[in-house]
Amino acid sequence: MDKVNVSVIGANGYVGLELCKILKNHPNVNIVHCVSRCYANQSFSDVFPGMSGMDMDFSEMNLDLICQGSEYVFLALPHGFSMEVAKKCVSLNTKVIDLSGDFRYDDIKTYEKWYNITHTASELNEMAVYGLTELYFEKIAKADLIANPGCYTTCSIMALYPLLKDKLIDTKNIIIDAKSGISGAGRKEDLKYSFCEADSSCCAYSIGNHRHTSEIEEKLSFAANTQILLSFTPQLLPVKRGIFATIYANLPSSVTRGDIMESYKNMYARKPFVNIYESGLPELKHVINTNNIGIGFEIDTRLNRLVIVSTIDNLQKGAAGQAVQNLNVMLGIDETTALNRYSTGV
Amino acid sequence: MDKVNVSVIGANGYVGLELCKILKNHPNVNIVHCVSRCYANQSFSDVFPGMSGMDMDFSEMNLDLICQGSEYVFLALPHGFSMEVAKKCVSLNTKVIDLSGDFRYDDIKTYEKWYNITHTASELNEMAVYGLTELYFEKIAKADLIANPGCYTTCSIMALYPLLKDKLIDTKNIIIDAKSGISGAGRKEDLKYSFCEADSSCCAYSIGNHRHTSEIEEKLSFAANTQILLSFTPQLLPVKRGIFATIYANLPSSVTRGDIMESYKNMYARKPFVNIYESGLPELKHVINTNNIGIGFEIDTRLNRLVIVSTIDNLQKGAAGQAVQNLNVMLGIDETTALNRYSTGV
Amino acid sequence: MDKVNVSVIGANGYVGLELCKILKNHPNVNIVHCVSRCYANQSFSDVFPGMSGMDMDFSEMNLDLICQGSEYVFLALPHGFSMEVAKKCVSLNTKVIDLSGDFRYDDIKTYEKWYNITHTASELNEMAVYGLTELYFEKIAKADLIANPGCYTTCSIMALYPLLKDKLIDTKNIIIDAKSGISGAGRKEDLKYSFCEADSSCCAYSIGNHRHTSEIEEKLSFAANTQILLSFTPQLLPVKRGIFATIYANLPSSVTRGDIMESYKNMYARKPFVNIYESGLPELKHVINTNNIGIGFEIDTRLNRLVIVSTIDNLQKGAAGQAVQNLNVMLGIDETTALNRYSTGV
Amino acid sequence: MDKVNVSVIGANGYVGLELCKILKNHPNVNIVHCVSRCYANQSFSDVFPGMSGMDMDFSEMNLDLICQGSEYVFLALPHGFSMEVAKKCVSLNTKVIDLSGDFRYDDIKTYEKWYNITHTASELNEMAVYGLTELYFEKIAKADLIANPGCYTTCSIMALYPLLKDKLIDTKNIIIDAKSGISGAGRKEDLKYSFCEADSSCCAYSIGNHRHTSEIEEKLSFAANTQILLSFTPQLLPVKRGIFATIYANLPSSVTRGDIMESYKNMYARKPFVNIYESGLPELKHVINTNNIGIGFEIDTRLNRLVIVSTIDNLQKGAAGQAVQNLNVMLGIDETTALNRYSTGV
Repeated sequence: MDKVNVSVIGANGYVGLELCKILKNHPNVNIVHCVSRCYANQSFSDVFPGMSGMDMDFSEMNLDLICQGSEYVFLALPHGFSMEVAKKCVSLNTKVIDLSGDFRYDDIKTYEKWYNITHTASELNEMAVYGLTELYFEKIAKADLIANPGCYTTCSIMALYPLLKDKLIDTKNIIIDAKSGISGAGRKEDLKYSFCEADSSCCAYSIGNHRHTSEIEEKLSFAANTQILLSFTPQLLPVKRGIFATIYANLPSSVTRGDIMESYKNMYARKPFVNIYESGLPELKHVINTNNIGIGFEIDTRLNRLVIVSTIDNLQKGAAGQAVQNLNVMLGIDETTALNRYSTGV
Repeated sequence: MDKVNVSVIGANGYVGLELCKILKNHPNVNIVHCVSRCYANQSFSDVFPGMSGMDMDFSEMNLDLICQGSEYVFLALPHGFSMEVAKKCVSLNTKVIDLSGDFRYDDIKTYEKWYNITHTASELNEMAVYGLTELYFEKIAKADLIANPGCYTTCSIMALYPLLKDKLIDTKNIIIDAKSGISGAGRKEDLKYSFCEADSSCCAYSIGNHRHTSEIEEKLSFAANTQILLSFTPQLLPVKRGIFATIYANLPSSVTRGDIMESYKNMYARKPFVNIYESGLPELKHVINTNNIGIGFEIDTRLNRLVIVSTIDNLQKGAAGQAVQNLNVMLGIDETTALNRYSTGV
Repeated sequence: MDKVNVSVIGANGYVGLELCKILKNHPNVNIVHCVSRCYANQSFSDVFPGMSGMDMDFSEMNLDLICQGSEYVFLALPHGFSMEVAKKCVSLNTKVIDLSGDFRYDDIKTYEKWYNITHTASELNEMAVYGLTELYFEKIAKADLIANPGCYTTCSIMALYPLLKDKLIDTKNIIIDAKSGISGAGRKEDLKYSFCEADSSCCAYSIGNHRHTSEIEEKLSFAANTQILLSFTPQLLPVKRGIFATIYANLPSSVTRGDIMESYKNMYARKPFVNIYESGLPELKHVINTNNIGIGFEIDTRLNRLVIVSTIDNLQKGAAGQAVQNLNVMLGIDETTALNRYSTGV
Repeated sequence: MDKVNVSVIGANGYVGLELCKILKNHPNVNIVHCVSRCYANQSFSDVFPGMSGMDMDFSEMNLDLICQGSEYVFLALPHGFSMEVAKKCVSLNTKVIDLSGDFRYDDIKTYEKWYNITHTASELNEMAVYGLTELYFEKIAKADLIANPGCYTTCSIMALYPLLKDKLIDTKNIIIDAKSGISGAGRKEDLKYSFCEADSSCCAYSIGNHRHTSEIEEKLSFAANTQILLSFTPQLLPVKRGIFATIYANLPSSVTRGDIMESYKNMYARKPFVNIYESGLPELKHVINTNNIGIGFEIDTRLNRLVIVSTIDNLQKGAAGQAVQNLNVMLGIDETTALNRYSTGV
C-alpha cells in the first residue's frame, strides 16, 4: 500500500513521543506534522536528542493546514480541549484517533460528572468508537473517530470483560488494585514525581474517585448486562512504565479454573497481543516496550475467590501502541504492523 | 543502667545486619557475638566494609559459649532450625528474641500445616510471647522467649486488629494486597532477585498460599473472636525495603470515618511508632529506615468499602527494629531507644 | 529479497535474547534455531513469557543440523568456547557473527595474555573482520566471520578513533572513565548483581586490568599509527542497560572545538546511528533501546583538556544491535533494517 | 552536659530535613526553631508525614527571636543570601554553621568569580573556619562561624589532600570524575530531575565550570603549596544519595602502594569516619546513611597512574552530617555523637 499521511497533535508529551517513535518506524506511515505549542518551530531532534532521526520541526497548531495534509491525526491533548480539536478535524474530513477521555463514554452524563467538564461535542460522541481493539475490532475498522481507552482501563477491562460476559464471577465485591509507572502522570514538573520523592517509594492516590473507575464501570456494565460498581485503587510504582493490576472477584463455587481459562481463550483466540498464562503469572517486565497484555490468574479455593493479574505497558497498549493498533485496523493492514510483541525483560 | 550483653545468631543476612547496626548504636547494649557460619572467624568489617566500625570477628555457633556471655540472643535463622537453637538457649537461661516463624502460632497445628515442618519444641511454644509490641506490651515485658512477627504480618495485623476488635468491619471479604521490597527475600543468589530481572518490574507470588496468611488469620481471629479467613496477595516492588499493604474491607453502612479513626486512636494512643493519618495517606518513603508504621484510610461511600493503606520498613518494624523494640520493653527502658522515628523521604 | 535463514547459539543470555527480539522483528530474516543447552527442547515462550510470540523450542547444540539450515549463525557464547564453535560453523560454509572476544584481536598474543586462554583457531582469526560497522563497513560486507566488538570498546573506540587518526589529541594521558549497566555482567546468579546489593549504589572493578582495555588499545593504536596505552576504569551503574563513557585527553593548545567537530563529522558523515552533538551532551536515556551512539564533548580551556561523553546501549550497539547491523551490511540491505533509532527517554 | 539550643534555617530542603532528623536524635541538642518561609506556621509533621515526631511548627525567619533562643544556628540557605543572615546571627552572638558556599573561600575574589556574586561580608569571611572536620579540627573547636564544605568537595579533597601534602602525586593531570545522587540538586520541581527523566539514565553537566572545582583547587593548593588546577566532571547517577568520585593522578615511578597507604594512614589515623580500604574498593552503598567516607585505590603500574575511589553520602558527610560533626567538635563532645557509622548496604 501507499504510505498514509498522519500527524500527531500534542507530540511533546510521553504519549505523543511514543506515538512519534512508533509511527517513524511504521512502514506504511508518513509523519507530516508533529504539533507542540511549547516547542513550535524548534527542531524535534534539538529538543529531544534521543529522537535524532526526527528530521523535522515541531509545528504550530494550524488545524486547516494539518488536516489538509493528513488523512489521520492523533490527538494527545488534555481532556476538555481535545473535543474541540476533534470537532474541527472531523469537519475537515480527517479521521481522528483521540487519546483523551473526551469521547470514551456512551453516557455523556457520566463523563461530565467524573471529569467535571461540560461536553461540547455530543454529536461527535455519538459517532466515536471506543478503541479497545480486541473488543471493538469491527467497529474500529469503519470508524472516523476513535476514543482510545485509558491505560488503567485497558488493563482492567480486558481482564474482566469475558468473565462478566460469561457470568462467571460475582458482580459485587470486584476490587482492582492497580499500580502504575510514573510516566502515567505525564511529562511535567511536579515535586511528587521527582526522582528523590518517587524512587524507592510507593503511594496510593484518588482512592474511590479516580476517573478511570467510571470508564471501567461503564464498559463492564455492558459486558455484564447489569450495572457494575467496583473498587479501583490507583497506586504509583517507582518505575517509568507499566500498569500492573491485581484484581479480586468472588466466584460461585461451581466455577473452575477451566471455565475461566475457556472464557479468556474464547474471547482472545487469535488476538496477537493477548497472552493468557496457562501457568505462572505475568510480570510487569514481560510487557514493557511491547503492545502486549499479559493476563494470568489463581483461584483461592479456601475462599472461592479469583485473583487475576493483568499487566500492560501504559504508553504502548495503554496509549500510543493501541492507538497505532487502531490505525492499522482502520487501514485494513496487519494489526501488529510496527508494534513490538517481544520483551526480553531487560 | 549497665549495658546488657547480647548476641546475634545469623548475623550475615539482611535482618541480622540490620540488628547489628541498630544494636551497635544502642546506648545500653554490648554486642558479644555475631554468629555466622559462612563467615566464622572472618573480620566483620572485611566481609561488610560498610560496617567498618564493627571491630570484631564473626563467631562460630557455639551456643554454650554464646549463652554464657549473653543475657539476650537474637535468632535470625531459618524456620525449623531456629526452634532447636532457641530450645538450647532457653535451657541455658538466656532470653531469646526469635525472628523466625517457629514460635509465632498459638496453634502448632497451623504452623505445621503452613510450614510443612514438624514442631519439635512445643513446650517452648507455650511460653513464647508474640512480639507485636503495640499489642502485647505487658506480656513481652515479662517474657523469656519472644516470637518476633513477620513483616507482612506486622503491617497487616496492626491495620486490622482494632477494627475487628471493635467490630467495625465485615469479617468476610477482607483482602490484603501487599507489596514488599526485595530484601524480604533475604540475602541470597537467585536470578529472579537479580537487578536486571527485578528492577523496573513488579510481580505477584504465592497467591492464596503464602505462610503469612495463616499468621495474620490466627491473630486477627483472636481480635474478632471469630474465625477470620482472608485473601493475602504478596507482590514484589523494585525497592530494597518496605511493606506497603492496601487493605479492603466492607463496612456496615452505619460506620463512619470517625468510628474508624477512634478505634485506631484508642488502640494506639501513646504508641510512639504508630502514625495514624488524620488526612492524606502514608507513603512507603515515610517509614523507610524508621521503626514506624503509617496507617491511613479512605471510605468509598459508593460501595461502603474501607480502603486502608498500611506501611512499614520490613527490616525495621517488620523485623530487626521491632526485635530491638521488644528488647527495650524487656529491659524496662524507653521503647524507642536506639530506634529511629524520622524519615526525610530521601 | 528472500528471507535469509539464521540461527542464534547461546540464545538464553541477555545478548542472545536481544538478538532473538531484533531478528524476530526483522523483515528479511527467518529464525531457524535458538540454541540453549540449559533450556533445550523447552518452549521458548514458556521459559521467557515476555517472548510469547517465539513459537519455537530451544534447540540443542547440533552444529551439523544448525549449519545445514542456516546461512548465518550468531554466537553469543563464552570466550574460549566460541572459537571452536566458529571453526566448525565456518567449515560447514555457514557465515558467523561471533559476539565473544575470541576473534577481536589482530595480535593473538594480546588476546592470549589478557584472556589467559590459548587460541586454537588462529587461521580463523586471520580471516575474521572486526565488526565495528562504522569503521570497517567495506570489509564487513565481504566477510565470512565477524568479530563483533565489546560494549565498552565500541563506545570508547568510536569516540577516540577519528581524533587519534587526525592527530588532534595527545596520545598520553588518555583516560576512559566508563560506567555500565548491570546487564553487561550477563544473566546469572551472583549476589553482587542482586537488586538489594546493586540498586542505589555504584562501584568500580577491574581497574587497570579489564580485558576491554587491550581491545581498545589495539584498535586505537591502528588509528594513531603509534602504540596507545590508556587508563580504562569500568564501573557499574544501577541501571539495566547502557554504557556511559567520560573520556579525557589533553589537547595541543592550537586545537579548537571546530577541529574536533570536523574530525567527527568527516568520519561519521552519513552514518545513520552516529549522533554527534553540536551542543549539549548525550545522556544515557537518549540511546537506550536504540542502536545509536551519542558523542558530545567540551573543551576545558583552562587546562587544554578535552572531555568527551560517549554513550550506547550495551545490548544494542554494544552487542546484539551491532551484530544485526553487521548482518544487514553482509546482506547488502539498508544497515538500519530492524534496528531502532528513536528513544523517547522513557 | 546540658542540652544546647539550636535552630535550623532553611529546614524544608533535603539538607535542612537531614539536619532536623539528625538533631532530633541528638542527645545533647534541643531544636528550638525550624525556619521555612514557604511552610511558616504549618505543622512540621503535616508537611512531612515521615517526620511525624517533629511536634513543632515551621517558624518564620525572625532572626532576633531565633538568635535570642539559640546558641547555634545552621544555615541551609542559597548562596548569596546566606552571608547576610550569617552576619546578623553573628552580630547577635549566635554561633553559625553555614552550609552555603558563601564563606568557604580564603580568597573572596575566587568566590566572586565562580559564584558571580559580590561578597558583602568580607569581615566575616576572615573569621570563618572551613569545616572539613578531619583537616581543621582544632580551628573548628574554637570557631564562631563554620563554612561547611560542599559535597563534591569533601569527597574530593579528603582523597587528595594527604597525597599532595606528602608530594606523592604529580600536580598536573589530576582528574576527578565525580558522580552524584540526585538529592544534590535540591528539593525542587525541575523536569530534568523528574523520575521519568532521571531513572535508568546518567548524564554529565557543568564540565569545566562547576563551582566546586574552585573550592577543591583552593584547598588542594594549600596542601600542595603550589597552585593546583584540575579537571572536575560532575555527573548524575539515578540514585537519591551519594557522591562517588573516581580520581586519576600520575605517579612518579618511585611511589609505591605502601607510600600512598602510609600517607592516608598518617593523616586519618584515629579519625572515626574515615575508612581507608587496605584491599578492595569502596562502593556507594557502604556509606549511604552514614557520615563515613570510604577511600580506596589501585595503582596501574603499566602507566604509573593512581586511581582513587572516594565515596560519601552527600546529605551526611557531604552536608548535614558533617555540620553536626562540626557542632560536636564545637561543643567538645565525642565527634560521632548522633552520627551513624554503620551501613548494611540495603
